[in-house]
Amino acid sequence: MSNSKIKVGVVGSTGLLSGFLIKLLHAHPHITIETVVSESNPNISIDTFHPFLRGITTYKTEEFKSNRLIDDCQVVFFCKPHGKGIEQTLQLVDRSRDLKIIDLSANFRLKQASLYDEWYKFTHPFPESLVEFVYGLPELNAEEIKKANFIANPGCYPTSIILAVAPLYKNKLVHPKKDLIIDSYSGVSGAGKQLNSRNMAINVEANIITYKVTDHQHTPEIEQELTKLLNEEVIINFVPHVAPFKYGIVNTIFVKLRSKIEINEIVDLYRQFYKPHPFIRIYSPDIYPEIQYVEGTNFCDIGFSYNQRTETLIVISAIDNVIKGGVGQAIQNMNIMYGWDENIGL
Amino acid sequence: MSNSKIKVGVVGSTGLLSGFLIKLLHAHPHITIETVVSESNPNISIDTFHPFLRGITTYKTEEFKSNRLIDDCQVVFFCKPHGKGIEQTLQLVDRSRDLKIIDLSANFRLKQASLYDEWYKFTHPFPESLVEFVYGLPELNAEEIKKANFIANPGCYPTSIILAVAPLYKNKLVHPKKDLIIDSYSGVSGAGKQLNSRNMAINVEANIITYKVTDHQHTPEIEQELTKLLNEEVIINFVPHVAPFKYGIVNTIFVKLRSKIEINEIVDLYRQFYKPHPFIRIYSPDIYPEIQYVEGTNFCDIGFSYNQRTETLIVISAIDNVIKGGVGQAIQNMNIMYGWDENIGL
Amino acid sequence: MSNSKIKVGVVGSTGLLSGFLIKLLHAHPHITIETVVSESNPNISIDTFHPFLRGITTYKTEEFKSNRLIDDCQVVFFCKPHGKGIEQTLQLVDRSRDLKIIDLSANFRLKQASLYDEWYKFTHPFPESLVEFVYGLPELNAEEIKKANFIANPGCYPTSIILAVAPLYKNKLVHPKKDLIIDSYSGVSGAGKQLNSRNMAINVEANIITYKVTDHQHTPEIEQELTKLLNEEVIINFVPHVAPFKYGIVNTIFVKLRSKIEINEIVDLYRQFYKPHPFIRIYSPDIYPEIQYVEGTNFCDIGFSYNQRTETLIVISAIDNVIKGGVGQAIQNMNIMYGWDENIGL
Amino acid sequence: MSNSKIKVGVVGSTGLLSGFLIKLLHAHPHITIETVVSESNPNISIDTFHPFLRGITTYKTEEFKSNRLIDDCQVVFFCKPHGKGIEQTLQLVDRSRDLKIIDLSANFRLKQASLYDEWYKFTHPFPESLVEFVYGLPELNAEEIKKANFIANPGCYPTSIILAVAPLYKNKLVHPKKDLIIDSYSGVSGAGKQLNSRNMAINVEANIITYKVTDHQHTPEIEQELTKLLNEEVIINFVPHVAPFKYGIVNTIFVKLRSKIEINEIVDLYRQFYKPHPFIRIYSPDIYPEIQYVEGTNFCDIGFSYNQRTETLIVISAIDNVIKGGVGQAIQNMNIMYGWDENIGL
Repeated sequence: MSNSKIKVGVVGSTGLLSGFLIKLLHAHPHITIETVVSESNPNISIDTFHPFLRGITTYKTEEFKSNRLIDDCQVVFFCKPHGKGIEQTLQLVDRSRDLKIIDLSANFRLKQASLYDEWYKFTHPFPESLVEFVYGLPELNAEEIKKANFIANPGCYPTSIILAVAPLYKNKLVHPKKDLIIDSYSGVSGAGKQLNSRNMAINVEANIITYKVTDHQHTPEIEQELTKLLNEEVIINFVPHVAPFKYGIVNTIFVKLRSKIEINEIVDLYRQFYKPHPFIRIYSPDIYPEIQYVEGTNFCDIGFSYNQRTETLIVISAIDNVIKGGVGQAIQNMNIMYGWDENIGL
Repeated sequence: MSNSKIKVGVVGSTGLLSGFLIKLLHAHPHITIETVVSESNPNISIDTFHPFLRGITTYKTEEFKSNRLIDDCQVVFFCKPHGKGIEQTLQLVDRSRDLKIIDLSANFRLKQASLYDEWYKFTHPFPESLVEFVYGLPELNAEEIKKANFIANPGCYPTSIILAVAPLYKNKLVHPKKDLIIDSYSGVSGAGKQLNSRNMAINVEANIITYKVTDHQHTPEIEQELTKLLNEEVIINFVPHVAPFKYGIVNTIFVKLRSKIEINEIVDLYRQFYKPHPFIRIYSPDIYPEIQYVEGTNFCDIGFSYNQRTETLIVISAIDNVIKGGVGQAIQNMNIMYGWDENIGL
Repeated sequence: MSNSKIKVGVVGSTGLLSGFLIKLLHAHPHITIETVVSESNPNISIDTFHPFLRGITTYKTEEFKSNRLIDDCQVVFFCKPHGKGIEQTLQLVDRSRDLKIIDLSANFRLKQASLYDEWYKFTHPFPESLVEFVYGLPELNAEEIKKANFIANPGCYPTSIILAVAPLYKNKLVHPKKDLIIDSYSGVSGAGKQLNSRNMAINVEANIITYKVTDHQHTPEIEQELTKLLNEEVIINFVPHVAPFKYGIVNTIFVKLRSKIEINEIVDLYRQFYKPHPFIRIYSPDIYPEIQYVEGTNFCDIGFSYNQRTETLIVISAIDNVIKGGVGQAIQNMNIMYGWDENIGL
Repeated sequence: MSNSKIKVGVVGSTGLLSGFLIKLLHAHPHITIETVVSESNPNISIDTFHPFLRGITTYKTEEFKSNRLIDDCQVVFFCKPHGKGIEQTLQLVDRSRDLKIIDLSANFRLKQASLYDEWYKFTHPFPESLVEFVYGLPELNAEEIKKANFIANPGCYPTSIILAVAPLYKNKLVHPKKDLIIDSYSGVSGAGKQLNSRNMAINVEANIITYKVTDHQHTPEIEQELTKLLNEEVIINFVPHVAPFKYGIVNTIFVKLRSKIEINEIVDLYRQFYKPHPFIRIYSPDIYPEIQYVEGTNFCDIGFSYNQRTETLIVISAIDNVIKGGVGQAIQNMNIMYGWDENIGL
């Protein structure tokens, strides 16, 4: 690494994720934040939107100007809501293919454009652009990420679920005819800061809210990546819930294996699979990940039990949805793109 | 009581309080719900707004028609937001002074109209009506309530604070030159169901939110009632906070007494003062009320410690803000107005 | 019902469930509490253990004396921990077969004694007694309960799970070769009041704790009842978790049906099945039970979605674990045994 | 700073604070952890007690041996419970006055030994040692800390309260005859991990627990430091509560000033007072600190309102009790002792 620091921009800087991204970027030893952009709220001190940044940073939001970003930044992070900002992102892509872009939305994650119509309820305006973005799950795609300039940063649920079963799919251990069953619990930060009834404290406190039982938009993202791993079409049951805490996702995943396997073999397989990856922690059998162990970190923790009576493998995984499921993974991707240590600044 | 049941109406039936009111009224042995009214959402099944009523009640909201209420009801409960529905309430007052009205808003609590301008930021359109409504705090005003047709049901904070110190003010034990200090914590139900940023779970979870430190609109209500008790002007410091739970208020109140008093005398005084009142529980010294002991009940629990070193009496009180601080007290008032047992249906 | 009230006793009156039982029994119009018994803590005011009972009841605990219970009570509720008090319960059974006994522990729920060794880690001292106790799930066994004197009150998880799928098993709609998958979340009250690290707030707050993934002791209870319904051996995957709230259980259940069925047929089937049962609420498709709708009630709410892509029926059920999963169901059983309205006192 | 890293030891490594201390020390660029000591649990992997350290550190606990610490460490952190380990700490003090010791307990905070009898209920075995330990509140005592080898790290409540009013006391703005009133809310981590009924989730969830209303052991610590600042005896009312979250303290402090002051003057005074101190954030008037802004940081946030009607200044302060109220401040003290940037590793 040269001595001069890499200059980065953040587009969409008023939402929940961007606040945490700015905090981590600000503390990252190899970069400086050149600009934070908010179309809707330009020229406002960033700590107005993210009060925890008071006394830490003094950035003011700027208007979106593609020149400014292309001329002055080497990396641009996009934190726009799903379906927003696609054209802007592609302006940068088209005009400077050297600029690195890490997009934290779902805008470029799915490779089959029709899935946006089906699951996101919008028609993707530039379907041909989808292949240009590498799916930025570092533990599976590190080689591609190293070579990429454009990254689609994975969703929070998909990160925690794909990592939890990838070794099984990659090694063809799952029963192809029995679909995967995933029951997931997320804290309220998963929904960001926008006002809506479901995320009012009066509904969340002392409650579990089940939603989108068959139609959550992360479903095709998980299926796409598992299908790639298995090389056979994967269909899943994915049921998400909101639980009364702020950060974290816990998944309980029920897997039918092709054949009986000792639980210790499973553990060994996972430990081998994830050996080079500092952010994956594989637990010993019958010990389970908890949010309290991953909160505030970029770890994905994975634990197991094998139910002898039903011949079912139960995989439990947990992440901090904002860090490993969002801004931490984005920085991990940047680190990999620049050849830095994967955990710098994390 | 005659065998025929009293017919009641509920106006403003989509907000948080009205759901609980309808639940309690529905189970009350001496009344039947004749109509539930929603101007903004007429002709909709009530359990749409209050899903916990599914399978319990089958009411549909009606439009507001004063004739309907006057002709068919003997009691009407108003659950409109503060500043709304004043004219409608007074339509009923004017046209049928036999109809009993229990208003759960702040619309008729303050007797000095200018306080609405100052604290609620609206000009009361019918200041002359204010004296017609009895302040419905049963433990202090039972005699007036018995004779009244129009009740202003107290606010949640005021209920829990006035009851916590009334014996001291009534008996002139407080130091008149030293203002009362009240630090209060409320669950999120205090803010109802309306969308707003402060009550989003992302802000409430794992947090304390301090608000309106010097200008909460319940301040003049508390001062009005304590001034009546002391017969001397009372000014208070009242600092409210929101804490991460749904129901309940806990107050910590610091009182400077006129002269030294044994804590046991205080306890005896309170027990005597509240003897006839089934919903007040006075704790032994150095045991403190907690939300878990009052949740779901119409109790107001009161406990004490005396700090010898600072010569300060500390009073802790707790209520369920929705029950004793709202719908429970409204029913308690109705019970008293009809001469029924105070705790029927509670 | 005659005018004289039924006299009841409560044995094991210091644990979490007994406090709520005493509260409900105290308010029940057809009974009086004759005695509350605590072997370990006799002669102590009951509100010492259950402070929310202050000012409501004035019972003092008595020592366990079988004569006292047999001579003076018509119903005795046992609230002892699992594995405790079996001999005492049977003393009463043996000496007065007219005395009604409702046991809230697991001591008499399983009909095959060896399951206690396997799942509860104790050897049942009186295996022959197990058949004498009717499994008290009123919506399935009302006829037997009516005739019974000895009731084994179901566990909290089993209540909420068995009711959620009973119509499918009873009507042989489930695929016999594909095991049921149940992912369950319970509030901390499920663990009672005993000190243990897992239920310390430092571990529960802002967390999900997964435990007993393959060996929870409620597993055989669920399997026993589903096997009875299906008339074929049922094996389940049941994964319990603790979530950061006090009351309530939510289950997400994945069912493979024998053949494709329209979701509306399922809903109709359930509504028909549970028609006579006031405490079961069947939701319209794609609306899901939440704890906030059942908290403090004896309801079991059940909702559904059908995943077309995976041909999986997802059933969501919710109860208040302390009420429908404990003391409320115990009282419902008593009501049925006496021929009273099922929901008297609930 | 030389290139070689400072070697540190941690004594008492199984409690809650020590886990977070080890995490921060492990990431600190200028030090290495030489040894972690647990008398009661030697020779056990440290992540057994602090599972979030899995995959981060691989330390094993050692027995306490003073030689080992004196010979191999340059700094030793003591994280023993209050009243424990005094003799061990002093063994190190006596035998190597060059060794730096940072004690996180209350063992050496109070300078008047009799206060231990009165407030902690133990007799301090080595009262003469108390003066040797500098009270490690960096924003007030930086000069002394720089020169000190032995530091008594402040308590969590005292840190957040003393900092909140220090500028007023230092500048003699408080009314000497009117005692300070402090109402404080802490998350459950304040009580550590030891089993006790008050901190069971069944009691903490959806609740506020008031405790030690007149006799909390942090009272004399706050009074001692405010007395030093004012140069006149200070007596306070300090009422602590536990609220349902894990980390954080919020204080509401009511101050009677000697004379009327504009709120902006107050803010200026505080900003001036804390100018050199990176971890103090002074808010603009009528904006209040919240736990969500300080969680996970070493900040102490301070905000104000002035109540014109009662002539009372209300100060709100918030910290993360584990970081600024514990391990973060300990590291801040170490940084100052070594002349490093105050916020290295924080």
